[in-house]
Amino acid sequence: MSTLVTGVAELVTQDASLGTLTDAALVVDAGRVAWVGPASRAPDADERVDVGGRAVVPGFVDSHTHLVFAGDRSAEFAARMRGERYDGGGIASTVAATRAAGEEELRVRLQGLVTEMRRQGTTTVEVKSGYGLTTADEVRALRLAREVTPETTFLGAHVVPPELAGRREEYLALVTGDMLAACAPHARWVDVFCEPSSAHAFDAEESRAVLQAGRAAGLGLRVHANQLGHGPGVRLAVELGAASADHCTYLSAADVDALAGSATVATLLPGVEFSTRSPYPDARRLLDAGVVVALATDCNPGTSFTSSMPLCIALAVREMAMTPSEALWAATAGGARALRRDDVGHLGVGARADLVVLDAPSHLHLAYRPGVPLATPLLGP
Amino acid sequence: MSTLVTGVAELVTQDASLGTLTDAALVVDAGRVAWVGPASRAPDADERVDVGGRAVVPGFVDSHTHLVFAGDRSAEFAARMRGERYDGGGIASTVAATRAAGEEELRVRLQGLVTEMRRQGTTTVEVKSGYGLTTADEVRALRLAREVTPETTFLGAHVVPPELAGRREEYLALVTGDMLAACAPHARWVDVFCEPSSAHAFDAEESRAVLQAGRAAGLGLRVHANQLGHGPGVRLAVELGAASADHCTYLSAADVDALAGSATVATLLPGVEFSTRSPYPDARRLLDAGVVVALATDCNPGTSFTSSMPLCIALAVREMAMTPSEALWAATAGGARALRRDDVGHLGVGARADLVVLDAPSHLHLAYRPGVPLATPLLGP
Repeated sequence: MSTLVTGVAELVTQDASLGTLTDAALVVDAGRVAWVGPASRAPDADERVDVGGRAVVPGFVDSHTHLVFAGDRSAEFAARMRGERYDGGGIASTVAATRAAGEEELRVRLQGLVTEMRRQGTTTVEVKSGYGLTTADEVRALRLAREVTPETTFLGAHVVPPELAGRREEYLALVTGDMLAACAPHARWVDVFCEPSSAHAFDAEESRAVLQAGRAAGLGLRVHANQLGHGPGVRLAVELGAASADHCTYLSAADVDALAGSATVATLLPGVEFSTRSPYPDARRLLDAGVVVALATDCNPGTSFTSSMPLCIALAVREMAMTPSEALWAATAGGARALRRDDVGHLGVGARADLVVLDAPSHLHLAYRPGVPLATPLLGP
Repeated sequence: MSTLVTGVAELVTQDASLGTLTDAALVVDAGRVAWVGPASRAPDADERVDVGGRAVVPGFVDSHTHLVFAGDRSAEFAARMRGERYDGGGIASTVAATRAAGEEELRVRLQGLVTEMRRQGTTTVEVKSGYGLTTADEVRALRLAREVTPETTFLGAHVVPPELAGRREEYLALVTGDMLAACAPHARWVDVFCEPSSAHAFDAEESRAVLQAGRAAGLGLRVHANQLGHGPGVRLAVELGAASADHCTYLSAADVDALAGSATVATLLPGVEFSTRSPYPDARRLLDAGVVVALATDCNPGTSFTSSMPLCIALAVREMAMTPSEALWAATAGGARALRRDDVGHLGVGARADLVVLDAPSHLHLAYRPGVPLATPLLGP
């Protein structure tokens, strides 16, 4: 059953040869884009959907989230807005609440957040573990995550759990040993919070050990890098061929050079800077150096409890000097690159038909109309 | 027919004697709040609505918008994000498009925006004219605005229209004469863009003349004051007893003192600073001085095309050092004060039953979850 989509005032394909079309149409067949072109040359199809002069863009690819958790940290947020500083320590409160939660409670929360994201135009989402920090709790988180996405990431190396404070080596042996072995079947990726400036996170050698063990277990690599201060995370990510170095708030010239010459995407998470009142990463510097940039929400209860990719786009334009087109690319094709996916993040022929319609005539409105829920998936559940 | 609302995890009444209740209930009768109290003491009612452990707050009162317009200024927005400066000159492009538009086109756009606002929790909205700038076009705008709200504002003194550039006195005579006489029957308020630093707007004496004429015609007073630079607008607003001085971005100590000793509300519009990349007003300084502060969107196609009061709350917390409670007060009770209304902006007994339910357990989530559409009107159309 094929569907012809008409009335597309602007079609942002993120396909290099198709570009952005005005007065366009698409044909969707069996969940894939089958034809793209000018409305005047649209072929016939079994059914027709008219979007009434609106813009259509690829569904957002949110390549960095932490959606499996319990508890509420709104009071911590309010305290931070009164001036308290974030150092990663609050993660422990989510770990305690998540361990204490029943599986169905976690599933309901996770599915609620995925639904909330989808209603705002996110059609591909990565989900990390990292609030369990025991083998059983990390496996549980990844099993649940896999119910909603194939893009699951083992983040046992999020922080050293409170009960092992002072016994870092013991925890690292677990994360690179039995916990990894139990989690790898449920994960596509391994990630580590590489942040030597935080007593809770991991330094370069610890992070290297986590990533190398993950790779040996068949997982692709991702790194939480350079969020709270300058550090080795970005260069480690590049050295090991990670798909993405995430945060990139504090970068040296050597970090930027390393990213520019690599296949590692710089994933920027401006919801974090918004919600922690931290300085925003210098996206302009990265783009001008030729680095591939992705945008993601980092949706998590501590530092960025937004599920809104449109907000991240608006923040990228307002606060990080990205153009609206660059920001939309980063939120779609950039996210796909960060997940090493070629079937999402664009609307070229053969791509998944993750069409998102904007209640607006052009993609500029995603930044021009901040906070307004403009994006809705067009087809599918 | 009375309705009992139960399952309210947190009820922010903005009523001084009721405060914020947890595990609360309300009874609504004939469109008004008839009873408020602990769930355990809730009376019977004809029907019952359970909000499932969510927070309930008063509907937002958006006391400053410009919703009657045609045209699109997304390209101007994108240019500004590339570094061009805003000086009020772009208003002329909206004036041209609005004059050229048919009445039904304007009505459809206006009603679409009001619907969009309502879906985000705004239950009271003020709407200004100011993109017509001929007698017929200003009357048309106010007639249309009155179809959606009683809070209509005559803003003939938005800018001097392009065809009268260099003939300011002629335009002022019109705005304070025939145009005012024709518009006053359709308006509750008169407003003026008092901004001596802009060649397009009005200086102190011009603004005084507009406001005094408006008052003589039976209208209440509002002032666009101190948006682009220091100036006389705020003190003029206080001197003449205006209900609100709006923007308040550049304030002297004398301005703050004047507001603090007055019944004039300082209405802050952080969507403007977000969308023009301007410095945010110093809300903390105003609150600490005892000034009554309101938040509004300034929804307009040039400088703040957001309809989202939740975004304004999040920006107030992130960028203006307001607490989440202060920001919510400003967006509800503060807006009501700016419109001199005592029937909206709170949920005390007798208030309009403009209940908004948040998909969250507390009002903190409005700032904690930026960009996420959490707020929905509970009852009514």
